[in-house]
Amino acid sequence: MKVKGEEYRTVWMAGSSVFLIEQNQLPFSFEIFEAKKYFDTCMAITSMVVRGAGAIGATAGYAMAQACLEAPEDDREDFLKNARFEIESTRPTAQNLFYAVERVYEAGKKSTEAAIEEARKIADEDAADSRSIGIYGNDLIGQGYRIGTHCNAGWLAFVDYGTALSPIYMAQKQGKDIFVYVDETRPRSQGARLTAWELHNKEVPHAIIPDNAAAWLMAQGKIDMYIVGADRIAANGDVANKIGTLEKAIAAHEYGIPFYVAAPTSTIDLDCKRGKDIKIEERSQDEVLYQTGIDKNGNLNKVLVCSPGSEAINPAFDVTPARFISGIITEKGIINAEEDLIREIKKQT
Amino acid sequence: MKVKGEEYRTVWMAGSSVFLIEQNQLPFSFEIFEAKKYFDTCMAITSMVVRGAGAIGATAGYAMAQACLEAPEDDREDFLKNARFEIESTRPTAQNLFYAVERVYEAGKKSTEAAIEEARKIADEDAADSRSIGIYGNDLIGQGYRIGTHCNAGWLAFVDYGTALSPIYMAQKQGKDIFVYVDETRPRSQGARLTAWELHNKEVPHAIIPDNAAAWLMAQGKIDMYIVGADRIAANGDVANKIGTLEKAIAAHEYGIPFYVAAPTSTIDLDCKRGKDIKIEERSQDEVLYQTGIDKNGNLNKVLVCSPGSEAINPAFDVTPARFISGIITEKGIINAEEDLIREIKKQT
Repeated sequence: MKVKGEEYRTVWMAGSSVFLIEQNQLPFSFEIFEAKKYFDTCMAITSMVVRGAGAIGATAGYAMAQACLEAPEDDREDFLKNARFEIESTRPTAQNLFYAVERVYEAGKKSTEAAIEEARKIADEDAADSRSIGIYGNDLIGQGYRIGTHCNAGWLAFVDYGTALSPIYMAQKQGKDIFVYVDETRPRSQGARLTAWELHNKEVPHAIIPDNAAAWLMAQGKIDMYIVGADRIAANGDVANKIGTLEKAIAAHEYGIPFYVAAPTSTIDLDCKRGKDIKIEERSQDEVLYQTGIDKNGNLNKVLVCSPGSEAINPAFDVTPARFISGIITEKGIINAEEDLIREIKKQT
Repeated sequence: MKVKGEEYRTVWMAGSSVFLIEQNQLPFSFEIFEAKKYFDTCMAITSMVVRGAGAIGATAGYAMAQACLEAPEDDREDFLKNARFEIESTRPTAQNLFYAVERVYEAGKKSTEAAIEEARKIADEDAADSRSIGIYGNDLIGQGYRIGTHCNAGWLAFVDYGTALSPIYMAQKQGKDIFVYVDETRPRSQGARLTAWELHNKEVPHAIIPDNAAAWLMAQGKIDMYIVGADRIAANGDVANKIGTLEKAIAAHEYGIPFYVAAPTSTIDLDCKRGKDIKIEERSQDEVLYQTGIDKNGNLNKVLVCSPGSEAINPAFDVTPARFISGIITEKGIINAEEDLIREIKKQT
């Protein structure tokens, strides 16, 4: 996607370095982060320089490729096993991460060049898949649709295009009159910061809403459909995604509003039979207690927004049961969230 | 309630001034605001120095009493009519406000002294009603209960004790082992700031949760019941309350978790037949776009937390249909959210 007239992906490799859009600085400033070693790339994942299922996957693939470059000849196998473990430990809920690391790890058994090539391929596939999701998802968007979305499943969350936002970009490109309600997505506010930044950058009409307002807008008939991303899809169609997705899906179900999950088939984990098998990451309570923003002097400032002395609980994801999901928009087409269809489409990939 | 060893109410009148706990300064500092004229008291309501159904009602009553004190003898009737209109315009969703203003306005037709006396009576009744709600509501709380609550319907929202939190204080007093999940309640974070401050002050075990996490905790069986307040209850049992209440109620209904509304019968508006007749206040988008908190130097600092250039929508309340409400805890007892029962209990008051 274009930023300030230049074409960018969220992550790329050049030489032995991995380059990333520094998403912790967005939406207030646009900076590029350079990770020189695989361990720096791990840190970039943990500290959320990069976030979002596809972008994490591509980044983890590049990290594994970096590890191949760094591996000492006399201890290559153990070094790579250990690196793999470290990379996999950065974000345990992200299915794409495990998928990418495994592919690059296996390629690395042949050669370092093969590992780097495999990592590049993963990134290219991610961009192509996102584009296909946009084409399929666009068919669901009618003229004049007002679309709700949660968190950021835009191009910033992938290598390019995105998942939940890709159909929206496609609809805009086709001249459809659309409006997007962007859930703020506390505690990290990826909606208010990243999705809003993306939509503003692409001039898609939108408004940020407090997470609490989604059901009320649905009750009033102001939302025609919801599209969200996924961090992991279980074999039975249960979906792990950013905390709050479940709440929106339950409300959409109550009001008969179509609720779609947009994700590449790489997000499907057939080894994970049902949602409750998915391990949910608990993150630091500071993400709830503090907020970072731009103060009146234009400086980034972190402020305590909760009552001093109280603690917070911060589950990063939740699991939405398949029965609340109208369909899954993949790069291969749109399917119902049913086990046989999920197995079938996964087989094609 | 005791703060730093001294007994306080949220609002009281002394001489011709109205005194209020400055709730915009909480939880970071505890200050008293003095409103010398009725117009200052109006401003205190508008700018949310005071908030919460009961406290707004009592404050509006005192404002009307102040207007009686200020009314010029030769223009008393027009002055008071105009003052009444101004006071009623401060927060159009708050039923208690209209109720209190009317009572004091009518008393003011007799004498200014009668108006002041009536305003005092409203405040005393509010405190007594809140205490009764605590006694009734406590019967619903079992040993070891984990209770969810939204926004602040504690003593800060009333003259004393509160509504949703009053049963919790009563349960604590009786030695029950309880835990409270406090919805942050964006955009103004009254949960994270005021409810957490109250519970911390009274040493009730609790944790702040992002609004997005409520349904997920319910899905995991971690919440035994929800208790929230109400800004207005329609004759058919529909409840207007802080934005997000609807979302929690829908989720609680989905998971079979009892969802109670605690409110004095003065919150019931029989003239309002159903929820959709309730006018919902839209507040400034800046409440969503900016957050105020304490920076590392201990100063209050306002920061932009959203993507610059994007707009926000900020409905302050939503309406929860009666079918999602397990019961209404009033000062006269607990009733189902059914029209005949609501009319019956309202008749008793």
